[in-house]
Amino acid sequence: MNQIAPPKRPFVGTRPVRPDGVPKVTGAARYGADYTPPGALCGKVLRSPHAHARIRGIDTARARALPGVHAVVTGADLPDFPDVYSGIERLQKNSHHDVRNVMAKEKALYHGQAVAAVAAQDEATAKAALALIAVDYQPLPFVVTIDAAIAEDAPLVHETMFTRNVAPAPLRPSNISRRWSDSLGDVAAGFAVADEVVELNFDTVPVHQGYIEPHACVAECHADGTAHLWVSSQGHFQMRDLTALFTGLPASAIRTSPAEIGGGFGGKTKVYLEPVAMLLSQRAGLPVKMTMSRHEVFRATGPASDSKIRVKIGARRDGTLTAAEIELYYNSGAFPSAPFINGCLCAFAHYAIPNQRGTGYDVVSNRAMTAAYRAPGSTQSCFATESVLDVLAGRIDMDPIDLRLKNAIRAGDAQLGDRTMSHDGFAETLRALKAHPKYRQPLGPNRGRGIAAGFWHNGAGHSGATCFVNADGVVTVASSSPDIGGSRAAMAMMAADTFGVPYDQIRSEIHDTASVPYGDVTGGSRVTFATGKAIVAACTSVIAQLKTRAAQIWQVDAEAVDWRDGAAHPSSSNVGRFEPLTLRELAEGASASGGHFGASHGETMTGHAPGLSAMFCDVEVDPETGAVKILDFVTCQDAGRAVHPAYVEGQMQGAVAQGIGWALNEGYVYGPDGVLQNAGWLDYRMPVASDLPMIDTVIVEVANPHHPFGVKGVAEAGMVSALGCVANAVSNATGRRMTSLPLNPETVLRALDERGPET
Amino acid sequence: MNQIAPPKRPFVGTRPVRPDGVPKVTGAARYGADYTPPGALCGKVLRSPHAHARIRGIDTARARALPGVHAVVTGADLPDFPDVYSGIERLQKNSHHDVRNVMAKEKALYHGQAVAAVAAQDEATAKAALALIAVDYQPLPFVVTIDAAIAEDAPLVHETMFTRNVAPAPLRPSNISRRWSDSLGDVAAGFAVADEVVELNFDTVPVHQGYIEPHACVAECHADGTAHLWVSSQGHFQMRDLTALFTGLPASAIRTSPAEIGGGFGGKTKVYLEPVAMLLSQRAGLPVKMTMSRHEVFRATGPASDSKIRVKIGARRDGTLTAAEIELYYNSGAFPSAPFINGCLCAFAHYAIPNQRGTGYDVVSNRAMTAAYRAPGSTQSCFATESVLDVLAGRIDMDPIDLRLKNAIRAGDAQLGDRTMSHDGFAETLRALKAHPKYRQPLGPNRGRGIAAGFWHNGAGHSGATCFVNADGVVTVASSSPDIGGSRAAMAMMAADTFGVPYDQIRSEIHDTASVPYGDVTGGSRVTFATGKAIVAACTSVIAQLKTRAAQIWQVDAEAVDWRDGAAHPSSSNVGRFEPLTLRELAEGASASGGHFGASHGETMTGHAPGLSAMFCDVEVDPETGAVKILDFVTCQDAGRAVHPAYVEGQMQGAVAQGIGWALNEGYVYGPDGVLQNAGWLDYRMPVASDLPMIDTVIVEVANPHHPFGVKGVAEAGMVSALGCVANAVSNATGRRMTSLPLNPETVLRALDERGPET
Repeated sequence: MNQIAPPKRPFVGTRPVRPDGVPKVTGAARYGADYTPPGALCGKVLRSPHAHARIRGIDTARARALPGVHAVVTGADLPDFPDVYSGIERLQKNSHHDVRNVMAKEKALYHGQAVAAVAAQDEATAKAALALIAVDYQPLPFVVTIDAAIAEDAPLVHETMFTRNVAPAPLRPSNISRRWSDSLGDVAAGFAVADEVVELNFDTVPVHQGYIEPHACVAECHADGTAHLWVSSQGHFQMRDLTALFTGLPASAIRTSPAEIGGGFGGKTKVYLEPVAMLLSQRAGLPVKMTMSRHEVFRATGPASDSKIRVKIGARRDGTLTAAEIELYYNSGAFPSAPFINGCLCAFAHYAIPNQRGTGYDVVSNRAMTAAYRAPGSTQSCFATESVLDVLAGRIDMDPIDLRLKNAIRAGDAQLGDRTMSHDGFAETLRALKAHPKYRQPLGPNRGRGIAAGFWHNGAGHSGATCFVNADGVVTVASSSPDIGGSRAAMAMMAADTFGVPYDQIRSEIHDTASVPYGDVTGGSRVTFATGKAIVAACTSVIAQLKTRAAQIWQVDAEAVDWRDGAAHPSSSNVGRFEPLTLRELAEGASASGGHFGASHGETMTGHAPGLSAMFCDVEVDPETGAVKILDFVTCQDAGRAVHPAYVEGQMQGAVAQGIGWALNEGYVYGPDGVLQNAGWLDYRMPVASDLPMIDTVIVEVANPHHPFGVKGVAEAGMVSALGCVANAVSNATGRRMTSLPLNPETVLRALDERGPET
Repeated sequence: MNQIAPPKRPFVGTRPVRPDGVPKVTGAARYGADYTPPGALCGKVLRSPHAHARIRGIDTARARALPGVHAVVTGADLPDFPDVYSGIERLQKNSHHDVRNVMAKEKALYHGQAVAAVAAQDEATAKAALALIAVDYQPLPFVVTIDAAIAEDAPLVHETMFTRNVAPAPLRPSNISRRWSDSLGDVAAGFAVADEVVELNFDTVPVHQGYIEPHACVAECHADGTAHLWVSSQGHFQMRDLTALFTGLPASAIRTSPAEIGGGFGGKTKVYLEPVAMLLSQRAGLPVKMTMSRHEVFRATGPASDSKIRVKIGARRDGTLTAAEIELYYNSGAFPSAPFINGCLCAFAHYAIPNQRGTGYDVVSNRAMTAAYRAPGSTQSCFATESVLDVLAGRIDMDPIDLRLKNAIRAGDAQLGDRTMSHDGFAETLRALKAHPKYRQPLGPNRGRGIAAGFWHNGAGHSGATCFVNADGVVTVASSSPDIGGSRAAMAMMAADTFGVPYDQIRSEIHDTASVPYGDVTGGSRVTFATGKAIVAACTSVIAQLKTRAAQIWQVDAEAVDWRDGAAHPSSSNVGRFEPLTLRELAEGASASGGHFGASHGETMTGHAPGLSAMFCDVEVDPETGAVKILDFVTCQDAGRAVHPAYVEGQMQGAVAQGIGWALNEGYVYGPDGVLQNAGWLDYRMPVASDLPMIDTVIVEVANPHHPFGVKGVAEAGMVSALGCVANAVSNATGRRMTSLPLNPETVLRALDERGPET
């Protein structure tokens, strides 16, 4: 076992109070809708009443004439982009589609799609103006489900879209935007040597990320072509860049400030309101504030894809997996998307299987476009994989954890997509799960236990960081990463241990786009790893400055100074000649001794580790109602090094809570008119506290040697396993294999009824 | 002549549009009072109705009980500091006094001094609450003028203050806070060898800096002890530090954002409202906004000192100055101040005089405490020096420019205060003045010409800067220095020429205290020099990153890459092997090639040069009314290198305009009750456009080798000469030596009347 013990540090690994805690508890923290500049107008969006309709014309004259209306925009006011998939810049690659997700152009592609927007002196006037906009719609036939979308002669969402990456090139357009496929080894031969082969079909429904805070922004376009944008998002740099792309303003002209964020989970990585608000502000010459209602959030922002998945896995009787195959269709809503590739890449990525094949299809339909949701794409396919493994374990009568342990991936093993596993830790995680005392507790009647594991490749990307020493000795660290999961605390702890000073001697901030080097979104479980590295790099540069200053004061070479315990110390030959100079002393004397200390870093991070989770849960199924009660839930994850264990536990618990919602209750319900029927919290059933047990967490720490504190990302991998975990438990409790989510009373009761009357 | 020609650059030396121009012209720019956070309370100050009174008690109970009042503070809520002058930190040195200038404690020391403050839901409630505060005053005798303050048995402003730096140590307290004295050579011997000695007494009155925008701030103290402060000031870091000192909050806990500033001229380097607003916010738990009325600005913020000055200068008949002596008293108002030292240091600093003595006294009185005003302290004393030189030139019948040129200081010459002149440029400036065609235009009846020169040592200090490259190739540069005189343009120009890219490819910003390393105030003509150096250093670091990246892409050593014309070029051995990589190409490819570019710098600047001005003006005096009309004004200054000549000219013209106001009309008028009688623009006579001629400017450029573009500071030195210039012109027009400012019709007419009836 090549486990590297994470180094002991005074603060990393402890649980101090978060810097943003008191403002959030007292209501002082400013979220997206909490900022209103002087003179701000209210922006409102007119949305399509049709699931699919040609827009023959929009008459905004009466709206424009209404007193108090300052500006009106329609899709014609947004730039267009060629409908091609070439080009270097990722942002621009899908911009033909993404701009239409901001506002419809030639067609409305889903009920709720933005069609026009107004900016008016107040909300009442804005709403009155929307009612005065006359849109000439020609309703068209529509498709909502995967089956309908891929049917022969299905109505086409995009009349000119041909499936990419199929051979021969298709002759007719289709609602399948893209195929992806890859394989390892000889799949047929692998199945041929298997003693048992299990093949099952699965389906899941669309679910929403369900963040508490609706989308909100303020845009202020100045007369000189510069602008200021206030966003509540997972990445204010990305919001800036997309707003620039969709308004024609240069990105660097839009100074973008991050607000607090009331949840994102992947759903706040896209622009919806921001370019519209900017265009309205540009026309009105005043700031424009826009906020979504909950209905708008449900109807027009990204859920996760519904899916149809077939998985086939073969095993020898000793548990050795010999071959695995997955074929999946993910529904991206109105515009193409990429998570189906993650579905293929992650399905088997946590196992060393010599022969594998993954094939995926991205399907479009007349529904709101999907957005990323916590390990986007991996959750659905791992649900299928882990279900099939559960069946296989039963067939060969092997402990389901042992089955997974026997095939657990190790650093150096091959994965689909030309990837090689980079780190260990999965086997250690499985062993920790199996060692949990609750794994040995007996199960009563109508109860079942489910085991599952999951893989998410995590992200690294770019992070910007700055570090300054204040004259009172307090260090300010700041980054480009919006703080969703407690990263201000984590950055402060890593900075404290880097400097060797107390945690409360660090101030941790998030900076606007003009104040810190570029950073990618907070997502992909990347921030504590990548932004942490950037922060440590900036701190290290400042420590070098401090050492140089101490050397100047002592008139010795810089190499003759050591930094430890928050102070410069004379190194060996000079020990005793000088008293150590503390950070505070150097800071207080900085004016006199040669200036103040500060550094910035913008770097691309490498060396990140994937996320691996393993978990089990015990459920009880009410045979009369089909209701599922979660009795116990134990989740294990390899954090590399848990910087702030309470937040790691929170991430692990939150991922499970969302997974339970997806597994048991959540789901979009569409009417025959293509209209979402449950666009609000009362009808869209998310789990509440009383639905959930205490979720036990076990943090495994197999340090990542490519991070100064050993960090791996932890936010998403737990979500990946949770669906299969719950489904396996319900299957084992009921004796019926559950392959269709959600497992709400209706689904479960139907399965129980198929089992026949109670004996 | 060791003049170094400033290098030719594409942008430095040109006149592009300023980045802050359009927002200011369109009203979009946010000044101090333009920001109101949600829930902000209105803060108001109760001010002393007495010029001097013991405060026996303050009863705030009725004010606190008024509905809508959220907080009340008095001087007892501010910390105290020992009344000593020791200690390391400059900020803390005078804090015993400075905290009382924020709010009175045991005594009210001037009419208008803050005594208490309230925060209420609106202005009407706040005003009503002020009226309910009962202060038990015991009025005391007071002193307003220098003569009254230094009289035997004068009422004491501070009963325990003994004059420092006199020997033997004084036995009785006094209103003279401090003496400063220094000499060069043998003054008595110097006068003994003079052919002509002129000695005159001068006096000036207090004048206000007269910025357009009154003081305003917003303070928001959070429940966790952190705070945000929005200030319109010359230095948001200094505002932060002083607010921290006077509230007990740690400086690093107060994130301070700079607003635009509507003029400062030295007067916005002190805190008045900020600590009060912060204490009110701390108690109220809500943001508190405070703004001063114009009356409050006049009654309670710093004017420049009034003064009494004696100057004696001796010269040989050939114009060689043999000795000079100055003795001065500066009135600092209620608390000690330091500009009297500048008065001594600058009086003769532009001349090489082997034998000199300067002696100054700082006097306190029952008036608002003075603040810095454009070359603080130098203006009054140079008025005296330049007047005496004018008389001397007449006595020896020498052209007054030639007299100054003969004695012009050169690099290496000694000055008072153990200083040595560091740069050349003064002689070049005088020659440029003499060469001006208007110097040869004839003067008609009742007209006179005045010549004067002046010295100001300028400042350097600390500046923080950051530089980031945006993904679209636009470079963001930002500094710690509030932009008063167009520094955003100057920084952008220097950055453009450092990178070799167009001016419009640079965005220039001012950052808050959490976003850029520490910087001192915008003052002392230091920003274009010192902050410019910091910006260039940050840009140079980023260029090094860009070169390294190009080297990685080309797979060559970093030393094999040159940076010029906004692009990385392969150096000699590789020329032709690779196409140059432009900044934009490197920026657009940064994500893929290894990350984004950025750097921060916080440095203490050295190598700054003093400011030197020379000027003449022609006036016409109306013998019936005593009114002075300025006919022509020509001002010359050594800019080292004029980065943006239009702003240099603006600084030169502005300094002259303010000097004309001081010379001719401005001045505080006190009643017998110690109350300022003219606390508003209608009664305090500042020059308006119709009072001023077109002010001709001549920029001399003797480059400063210690700045990458040759910059010297230009904002203040013009002010220093203007008073003497006008006074000499009026003296020469009237035949009466004008030694008392202002030269308003009353003063001039009295002088004309003393000349006897017209013949």
